[in-house]
Amino acid sequence: MKIQAAVVGATGIAGQQVLAALDKHPDFEIAALAASERSAGKSYAAAITDEQSGIRRWYVPGSEPPEAALKLPVQEAKSMRLDGIGVVFAAVESEAARELEPIYAARVPTISTARPYRMEADVPLLIPGVNLDHVAIVNEQRRRRGWKGFIATLPNCTATGLAITLKALDLRFGVDCAIVTTMQGISGAGRDLAALDIVENIIPFIPREEERLTIETRKILGRVGDGQIDELPVRVSATCTRAGVLNGHTEAATVGLKRAASIEQVIEAFESFGREFSAIGLPNAPRRMITVHRDPMRPQPRLDRDAENGMTTSVGRIRLDEVVPNGVKYLLVTHNAAMGAGRGAVLVAEYLRHAGYLG
Amino acid sequence: MKIQAAVVGATGIAGQQVLAALDKHPDFEIAALAASERSAGKSYAAAITDEQSGIRRWYVPGSEPPEAALKLPVQEAKSMRLDGIGVVFAAVESEAARELEPIYAARVPTISTARPYRMEADVPLLIPGVNLDHVAIVNEQRRRRGWKGFIATLPNCTATGLAITLKALDLRFGVDCAIVTTMQGISGAGRDLAALDIVENIIPFIPREEERLTIETRKILGRVGDGQIDELPVRVSATCTRAGVLNGHTEAATVGLKRAASIEQVIEAFESFGREFSAIGLPNAPRRMITVHRDPMRPQPRLDRDAENGMTTSVGRIRLDEVVPNGVKYLLVTHNAAMGAGRGAVLVAEYLRHAGYLG
Amino acid sequence: MKIQAAVVGATGIAGQQVLAALDKHPDFEIAALAASERSAGKSYAAAITDEQSGIRRWYVPGSEPPEAALKLPVQEAKSMRLDGIGVVFAAVESEAARELEPIYAARVPTISTARPYRMEADVPLLIPGVNLDHVAIVNEQRRRRGWKGFIATLPNCTATGLAITLKALDLRFGVDCAIVTTMQGISGAGRDLAALDIVENIIPFIPREEERLTIETRKILGRVGDGQIDELPVRVSATCTRAGVLNGHTEAATVGLKRAASIEQVIEAFESFGREFSAIGLPNAPRRMITVHRDPMRPQPRLDRDAENGMTTSVGRIRLDEVVPNGVKYLLVTHNAAMGAGRGAVLVAEYLRHAGYLG
Amino acid sequence: MKIQAAVVGATGIAGQQVLAALDKHPDFEIAALAASERSAGKSYAAAITDEQSGIRRWYVPGSEPPEAALKLPVQEAKSMRLDGIGVVFAAVESEAARELEPIYAARVPTISTARPYRMEADVPLLIPGVNLDHVAIVNEQRRRRGWKGFIATLPNCTATGLAITLKALDLRFGVDCAIVTTMQGISGAGRDLAALDIVENIIPFIPREEERLTIETRKILGRVGDGQIDELPVRVSATCTRAGVLNGHTEAATVGLKRAASIEQVIEAFESFGREFSAIGLPNAPRRMITVHRDPMRPQPRLDRDAENGMTTSVGRIRLDEVVPNGVKYLLVTHNAAMGAGRGAVLVAEYLRHAGYLG
Repeated sequence: MKIQAAVVGATGIAGQQVLAALDKHPDFEIAALAASERSAGKSYAAAITDEQSGIRRWYVPGSEPPEAALKLPVQEAKSMRLDGIGVVFAAVESEAARELEPIYAARVPTISTARPYRMEADVPLLIPGVNLDHVAIVNEQRRRRGWKGFIATLPNCTATGLAITLKALDLRFGVDCAIVTTMQGISGAGRDLAALDIVENIIPFIPREEERLTIETRKILGRVGDGQIDELPVRVSATCTRAGVLNGHTEAATVGLKRAASIEQVIEAFESFGREFSAIGLPNAPRRMITVHRDPMRPQPRLDRDAENGMTTSVGRIRLDEVVPNGVKYLLVTHNAAMGAGRGAVLVAEYLRHAGYLG
Repeated sequence: MKIQAAVVGATGIAGQQVLAALDKHPDFEIAALAASERSAGKSYAAAITDEQSGIRRWYVPGSEPPEAALKLPVQEAKSMRLDGIGVVFAAVESEAARELEPIYAARVPTISTARPYRMEADVPLLIPGVNLDHVAIVNEQRRRRGWKGFIATLPNCTATGLAITLKALDLRFGVDCAIVTTMQGISGAGRDLAALDIVENIIPFIPREEERLTIETRKILGRVGDGQIDELPVRVSATCTRAGVLNGHTEAATVGLKRAASIEQVIEAFESFGREFSAIGLPNAPRRMITVHRDPMRPQPRLDRDAENGMTTSVGRIRLDEVVPNGVKYLLVTHNAAMGAGRGAVLVAEYLRHAGYLG
Repeated sequence: MKIQAAVVGATGIAGQQVLAALDKHPDFEIAALAASERSAGKSYAAAITDEQSGIRRWYVPGSEPPEAALKLPVQEAKSMRLDGIGVVFAAVESEAARELEPIYAARVPTISTARPYRMEADVPLLIPGVNLDHVAIVNEQRRRRGWKGFIATLPNCTATGLAITLKALDLRFGVDCAIVTTMQGISGAGRDLAALDIVENIIPFIPREEERLTIETRKILGRVGDGQIDELPVRVSATCTRAGVLNGHTEAATVGLKRAASIEQVIEAFESFGREFSAIGLPNAPRRMITVHRDPMRPQPRLDRDAENGMTTSVGRIRLDEVVPNGVKYLLVTHNAAMGAGRGAVLVAEYLRHAGYLG
Repeated sequence: MKIQAAVVGATGIAGQQVLAALDKHPDFEIAALAASERSAGKSYAAAITDEQSGIRRWYVPGSEPPEAALKLPVQEAKSMRLDGIGVVFAAVESEAARELEPIYAARVPTISTARPYRMEADVPLLIPGVNLDHVAIVNEQRRRRGWKGFIATLPNCTATGLAITLKALDLRFGVDCAIVTTMQGISGAGRDLAALDIVENIIPFIPREEERLTIETRKILGRVGDGQIDELPVRVSATCTRAGVLNGHTEAATVGLKRAASIEQVIEAFESFGREFSAIGLPNAPRRMITVHRDPMRPQPRLDRDAENGMTTSVGRIRLDEVVPNGVKYLLVTHNAAMGAGRGAVLVAEYLRHAGYLG
């Protein structure tokens, strides 16, 4: 029997990505939708349709709104009915998330793409294939907070690609430090980024992004400790810039390892990473967590962001580095709106179900 | 009395930048022009005019071809007459430079924007305001090669901005290492770069650029030794990418200093750098070698590349770094086609004249 | 039994689009591949693989090279074996097409995306759903040229979208004249278009494009006459420009009709156009030949070019016009590399088979 | 003695363009500045300086804020003192303009870049060099409204380039109709245009732009009648789109003339247009109102928008047209933020002073 899923923020971009990933899903059924007061009371079809023009506001390229969703009523997020719901996907802005997620988590497992609870010690910050063992911490979370459900979060989209590659390296060689420069896609900034600012240009600063990349990476690479996640004391130095690319974050990383590695060993570590996870066969999991390119002209965001539906991290230009001890450097491309957002949240849910945390 | 200047490669982009910087110059007179066989024998006006359409091929935005140049005949580069010429600007491709520059340098001081002789031990690799003392090595060059003139070269445009900032830091604190990621403008690649490759994209590799950036930086920061330039043993690790920006290279640098410095000290080192050089008052010298931005949203290539006619290096986002010892990090924007090319070559000539090496 | 198909120009962009459209096709089987001398003798897998890097040169986003093709040997185009071949797809440059296509057509029906034979009176210039009745002219072609096969051609990609909409209008109201301004995507120009020319710019001229648009439209809209296609005497005035868009041609058309029409009647004419053709159910046919947008912000090339795999023409902003008699104006977006190229060629073949011209 | 000028909206983009054009002006002195309540009471230097970062918000590339302006106090627009002021430049949004301009005009000649009064019968809608004789209507305006000053307006930036070329044609051949498709630059939309919408795309609609282009063109080309401007009954059909270009509007026009003209006659009409106006020698006037290109690859917005400081209209690809009677077609590029905005307003003031309407 399928698990009944509720999607909060269903009219927004992130929420629609969740819906697209849930469409015709073998294990989940779209059972409830919620959004802000403005949409509440309408059918989903009506809520995403412009009254004047009759145009549907659907933001996931290459897909249509799921039939299962179109007829559902949109509920107001604060008062969404949770009876029978087995999992909540919360894809809302920070402020709303802070208020809403504890309401849901008190009763139902809640998977969040938002920021407020990411760094709380008893809340797991999950990337599928990287640290799903961290989910065990939710038992402590339930106990401490008296909840029947729990909150599990996904990281900032910029941290996702970096953490996946660092984890692969840490498992084999240990990671001591990382210096990373990002060239991030426009869609990560949403509609606030003015065309006048980015056309034929690079913006050298993304407020708060560098700090998040640092602290989230340390938590993702950490270990489950006594009632909390113990962070990995890796030093991460980041410079985050915005480039004139629609989707896809490109990141140039220089990593200091604890033990020296050859280029061949690094390639092997990347290519074998996550094999067990992929072998589970979850519907939205990539066949390879990391795709290694030998062509030095790859990865490119426009050519490689959509590989495996945006769920693989593309890596290339692997070289040794002499500046940091046991240094290795590479570039990566990650799809900020796939593994780092809605589709990634559904993949987390697929694993939680597989591991017995849902239903 | 003005020094008679010859410009080789006068119909190309780099040569035209030299001509624009020489227009109405107080100390130099455009006296001879040379190009390939195809243009030889025509007037310069005819050589840059398309026969069908009557359109002039002039590539320096915001300027017109110098009147002084339009009536001059274009000579064939191999057989250019050098009588009365006091300086040759050689702005040609690598292969041609390898053959032509020794012919000119046997008789006349020759300033080159090309690659072939940059790394020869007795050839100075000059950035105005940074290492003009290296020019002394030309005495050894003349002696060794039996030339009356000499070759002085300018570095790769990507090295220019980095070396200027590293020199400012090295003078005060000593520089131990640097890790740099570049996002380079399209014009650096010339007309070979296909629109299909770069629109809404980033290209992660520029062949041979990273090696050049490393070795040229070591030479530029070196000291005049016994009959040669002794390189500075700084470790430079580079990742060079191409971004969808027309002009201007953006570079994110993380630098390890020999002695710790505060952010204020770094700013002071940047802002005071080159003051004596600027004070000379050479016509094409910037008022400030380095312009420091406090706004974290700067520098941006589109907004800052043209500051001081492209002759200043714009720096911003200065922060301390914990990954490399005594670390400091920043972003810079440098105009690849100004200080790093034709106008920079003319500024070198202005200094050589000032220092008594010409005429 | 499937028809054996040969693809000439199989390593190029257009040829690969044909291969992608033939992959797992219910009616055709990829049976022979040909390309230039350089690739001849290799397997297709080897021919599209870079020897140094091991990278496959495959240019159709969102697809892989067909398994059926990878093991086939690549033959030299001039001497390709035709035994058993039921249709040849010729996707080569103009010069090669002029020489090769008569060789194939002497024995086998040949569908061409190239220019040389488009305007010959006994060669049909076909757009699926628009003028497939023109194919009848091949009987005259066979007779006159003594061929067992024939040549059928596809138009210039810019003509495709315009002709589809004009045909829909001509059927209902008659078309007297059209004034069209195009803003064409970069991929139509291939790799020759330099990034320096198009970034943050518009290029106001595409050599020979306007003449082709005019004459090809007149032929496409014509009627099968006595042993030739009689052109429709519609006056077409075109201004063709290049815009900084990767794929998709946007065209702003003002059309003078023979009989006045209301906006509602025009919409109805567009939406009902091609219904019989779509009803045949050919594998690559769109469900709707023309998709009408009511939102005035549509169609946009980036959002609408991929609708129905690029096989529908998206139309919007339908308004009446007072300058030309019985005027109507609209914008359209057509995918230059789908209906206007490889996939369109396969759809023509599907129809030829359906109508009994193949096998 | 210089005329004292007040600039309203001095902290905005349009107001800063006025200030830049007034800097070191031989005939005008920047004497008063006004803006919204938020800036009132500060010095101009303080008003455009970000308190946190110390960064100046100055939006005119290639210029610095005029020294004369930096020390002036910023007044509140509603209560600006007008004693001694000889001309007011009002560069504010529509709503503010509707309220403020009559207050100023009651006492002082007021030149407006805003929309509210453009189409009033007794308010001239001026383009320098095109219809400055329309300024005579202000005598009626003063009489009717009991004002000592008056309002003179500038048109929408899209109308400017079209009207300049149509006027040149109308003088020689008479203009009957025009069909125009525009590809407009991003800066015309201001900071509201989201990067996500325009990158690698074309937007097919600009709300209200087409109607304005039509009605404003008819008024600009009109004649001074009895107490009002009599519009020219030219039919103008417009399709206005937004392209990924920063500055510069590109327009493809097909024009029906009253009398047939050859291409040579059209070129002559364009090149001789405005000669008397340029001969006056006003400081901001272009040497040529229209610059004709013979190279079919021109005009391009990026290469040609800045010609003559953005004050000339660049025209190319002049061809005859068979669809409209006596048809001629061409492309033009006009700088939307120069002749069509602040610098154009100052040029209007220069003419008004020359013609005795100021001081």
